[in-house]
Amino acid sequence: MRRSRFLINTLKETPKEAVVVSHILMLRTCMIKQLASGIYTYMPLALRSLRKIENIIREELDAAGCQELLMPMVQPAELWSESGRWQAYGKELLRFEDRKDNGYCLGPTHEEVITDIARREIRSYRELPVNLYQIQSKFRDEIRPRFGLMRGREFIMKDAYSFDTDEQSCDESYWQMYEAYKRIFTRCGLTFRPVEADSGNIGGSYTHEFHVLAGSGEDEILSCSHCDYAANVERAELKTFEPAAMPDSVPTPEEVSTPAQKTIEAVAGFLGVKPEQCVKTLVYRAGDRIAAAALMGHRELNETTLRNEMGAAEIELVTDAATFQANGLAPGFMGPLDWPKDIPIYVDDEVMAQSSVVTAANKVDTHVKNVVPVAHFNPTKVLTLRAARAGDGCPRCGEGVYESYRGIEVGQVFKLGIKYSESMKAFYLDAEGNERPMVMGCYGIGVSRTMAAAIEQNHDKDGIIWPVQIAPFHVALLNLDIKDEEVVAACEAIESGLALHGVEVLVDDTANRPGPKFKDADLIGMPVQVKVGARSLKQGQVELKVRKTGERRSVALAEAVDEILADLKNLGWNSAPGQV
Amino acid sequence: MRRSRFLINTLKETPKEAVVVSHILMLRTCMIKQLASGIYTYMPLALRSLRKIENIIREELDAAGCQELLMPMVQPAELWSESGRWQAYGKELLRFEDRKDNGYCLGPTHEEVITDIARREIRSYRELPVNLYQIQSKFRDEIRPRFGLMRGREFIMKDAYSFDTDEQSCDESYWQMYEAYKRIFTRCGLTFRPVEADSGNIGGSYTHEFHVLAGSGEDEILSCSHCDYAANVERAELKTFEPAAMPDSVPTPEEVSTPAQKTIEAVAGFLGVKPEQCVKTLVYRAGDRIAAAALMGHRELNETTLRNEMGAAEIELVTDAATFQANGLAPGFMGPLDWPKDIPIYVDDEVMAQSSVVTAANKVDTHVKNVVPVAHFNPTKVLTLRAARAGDGCPRCGEGVYESYRGIEVGQVFKLGIKYSESMKAFYLDAEGNERPMVMGCYGIGVSRTMAAAIEQNHDKDGIIWPVQIAPFHVALLNLDIKDEEVVAACEAIESGLALHGVEVLVDDTANRPGPKFKDADLIGMPVQVKVGARSLKQGQVELKVRKTGERRSVALAEAVDEILADLKNLGWNSAPGQV
Repeated sequence: MRRSRFLINTLKETPKEAVVVSHILMLRTCMIKQLASGIYTYMPLALRSLRKIENIIREELDAAGCQELLMPMVQPAELWSESGRWQAYGKELLRFEDRKDNGYCLGPTHEEVITDIARREIRSYRELPVNLYQIQSKFRDEIRPRFGLMRGREFIMKDAYSFDTDEQSCDESYWQMYEAYKRIFTRCGLTFRPVEADSGNIGGSYTHEFHVLAGSGEDEILSCSHCDYAANVERAELKTFEPAAMPDSVPTPEEVSTPAQKTIEAVAGFLGVKPEQCVKTLVYRAGDRIAAAALMGHRELNETTLRNEMGAAEIELVTDAATFQANGLAPGFMGPLDWPKDIPIYVDDEVMAQSSVVTAANKVDTHVKNVVPVAHFNPTKVLTLRAARAGDGCPRCGEGVYESYRGIEVGQVFKLGIKYSESMKAFYLDAEGNERPMVMGCYGIGVSRTMAAAIEQNHDKDGIIWPVQIAPFHVALLNLDIKDEEVVAACEAIESGLALHGVEVLVDDTANRPGPKFKDADLIGMPVQVKVGARSLKQGQVELKVRKTGERRSVALAEAVDEILADLKNLGWNSAPGQV
Repeated sequence: MRRSRFLINTLKETPKEAVVVSHILMLRTCMIKQLASGIYTYMPLALRSLRKIENIIREELDAAGCQELLMPMVQPAELWSESGRWQAYGKELLRFEDRKDNGYCLGPTHEEVITDIARREIRSYRELPVNLYQIQSKFRDEIRPRFGLMRGREFIMKDAYSFDTDEQSCDESYWQMYEAYKRIFTRCGLTFRPVEADSGNIGGSYTHEFHVLAGSGEDEILSCSHCDYAANVERAELKTFEPAAMPDSVPTPEEVSTPAQKTIEAVAGFLGVKPEQCVKTLVYRAGDRIAAAALMGHRELNETTLRNEMGAAEIELVTDAATFQANGLAPGFMGPLDWPKDIPIYVDDEVMAQSSVVTAANKVDTHVKNVVPVAHFNPTKVLTLRAARAGDGCPRCGEGVYESYRGIEVGQVFKLGIKYSESMKAFYLDAEGNERPMVMGCYGIGVSRTMAAAIEQNHDKDGIIWPVQIAPFHVALLNLDIKDEEVVAACEAIESGLALHGVEVLVDDTANRPGPKFKDADLIGMPVQVKVGARSLKQGQVELKVRKTGERRSVALAEAVDEILADLKNLGWNSAPGQV
């Protein structure tokens, strides 16, 4: 492909509206153009990468026995009423009426449509399992679209739906998809983790999210250094501590004056102990109610756990003097010892495992030493309140420790169960002739989001560093002397030589000077760059550069094609589709 | 692909709601499922064919220098207001508001969006020409969706848009697309004609429609037997006749009594002449006005021509006695001789070329013989009023004659000119630095409609006869004894042998008896059928059947793959993509 015939206008400056790196780089490389808030045109460069991601998905899902179909984007209200979601789904569901005043919506997801197909087409257990998928533009009317393709309104998604006779068979379908997803993201050249996740609004028995790891990711993930276990930080399990044994002789707590020492670090320093020996106590509000959480001084609270324990939709740290005063609490000097009986206090199991701690005395400028939690504390409940973090031991295998990553969710596998098949009457006849609801799973991949996540994970200050498998082109071939016939001939020879191997080349045949061509090639980020200039060509040489490593070398023109192929293979490229 | 794992439930009966053959056969073969009026799910079988059509389109457009992108389906009202179409487009444009009450529509076509991209991205004549296309689901809120995919509301379309510096360059882009379209429909294995057409509502200087020829087509097309000229029957040009020479001695017309002989055929029979010697006269109404058209008795009127001549949006044949009476006309006995002066009468040039005709006398039960049009008629205007028809000479080449076909419009190429670039200010700088509007063309292919048209053109009483290039699978392999291990092994050998050549096989491994399997194979219509049964396999034989010709033969198992490949090649199959 000649760049002079390919629509890429690169930008030197960072566009004002973009804050995340994938958005910035996609705008700077002319990959996307905003049409309206959260609605983008995929320009030719972006579409080439999207198609590669889509094809990897197709090959892997077809190999896993899935069947591709294509459902409509415009869906009738009646169907959504059957599942109850016409009412239940929020404003993200864009509803409208056609010229005959019938209600419709733009599909944000397709459980209703696919369940309708299944109930019409599938009669017998002999026809199950079935797994159907599509790749399609979806629409969700996000209240605050942002970050370019990371949270758009119109976006490309792969959605798959499995139908099985029973729970066990559904689990098999689920894990097949789980494995297919691992192959898909591996083949995309991405570093990722499948993590256990909450089932969210859609309902269902269990679910994994697939996260592409990137420093800019919205979510923190903890992953075991030894086994496969990984989870969102809010959900990551922890080893629980057994309570300490009750000492034969319980020491008497000793009050000490700690004037104006309100933080754990200050108190520990003042008393010459470590934060790991101090207990900290936080007060949270849920509506009118308040409750306290106590944990060791070096840990953070897992707010999700406390929120669930308080049975609240939202909780908030109490910081206002009026609330403390109204409840007789001394901010900065609160502790489980002599805690007011009318305020619940939840204590982390790690606290109860200590033989002796320092805690605040519920009196201004006062702490207490020689406190034995099992003897002196009277918790409302003991549970694991602390947030998991890097370095904590993995409770699953008992061998590894957690490592922390930031992730971008690009896929999710979901065991739906019979939520839709019951409400929409998607029944089959089992071997005994009984009607049973099909057991469903659903499986999404954000295709456009995966492309954005690939850029979040693979870039440097100069631009994108495309994973070779999903790069729009494999090679950027820079013609540095477009009026020199020998240079033009050499470029054509390399391009056609590579084409024989299925290598896609973007030839920079513009009138730009070499400097801007180099900068553009780094910005656009094709895996291998080839520079062909008159001077080095006189010595029969062209220069190769691997974008990822920055490594450069001169090679003989006659060997350029082989050398480029070798570089691409080193980067993980395989010309044969279907082979990982 | 195993049929037992592929969702195809065939129907024996014709579904009630379907009247055209493509709709019937797509429902019977489980290719499509209706979700709402004019809105269908493409089931796996249909999607395979659609993808092949799409890929042929892609390869040919890429080869023609076009670039693929993907524009949003949801488009903001402001953009449509700029072109004036937010107001002008009728109710087929589905308009709605998002959660923030901003106006949007579902894209029925993308001139506005692409013109917006062009004006933002293209600055200089050096960047032109550019031709951008996409393949996407479109939505048009048809008032009467019907005929399955032939006239749906949500449908798959390829739309391309060219931008050029001037008229001449635009013409080159136009004809490149015209040629690409010919290659596309040829590669789809379809018999088609590009025909000159009216530019319709979209406006623009000229246009061709591409019609797939099929007896069930809505449009009549006339095509020259000698040259490339073809046109919709309403638009087909005709040779004009020169008026007859005025005779030296003009005969006197002779009235004859023709009691109750009201039709041309009756009059001709009664008077012993041919219809070709009689003039017929029809009266049309346009609102309050009426006008007459006279042409030779064996011809039909081209109503489009008369309507344009009357300057009316619609005209209607007058048949009610009251109108005739009010205007002093004798229905069944009207003719140009002594025609009332206050009613315009348009006379076909073929009439004026006759030396002597028979015509009605404007008196009940009376005709007139020995009438010389150039002497006795006083037409308001002479023009070509008759409709072109098969057998008429081609006016373009002067050598061929028209042949008549019925066609289904599947594509259109359109020279748009500067309609959108002027209203939306899509300007570029020419070599002298002057701002000029880009000259645009637009080019559509109905992808889902092409699939339907392929079935309209290629079927028989038993089912579909897929053109090999767009068949969902190339081969239907019928396992007639699924419990016989040797039969199973033979089927697997054939399937894997064919897979090496890129041949796609649908294996009927269901528990159905042979009869229903044969019927299903004919219905679903894969180009080649292979029947493997225990009895013939004992003799080392399998049976091949070519769906199109019905030809059957037994071949040795060892030669089956080669024989099938030979059959496929005879049918026009070529495994190498990109080669026609």
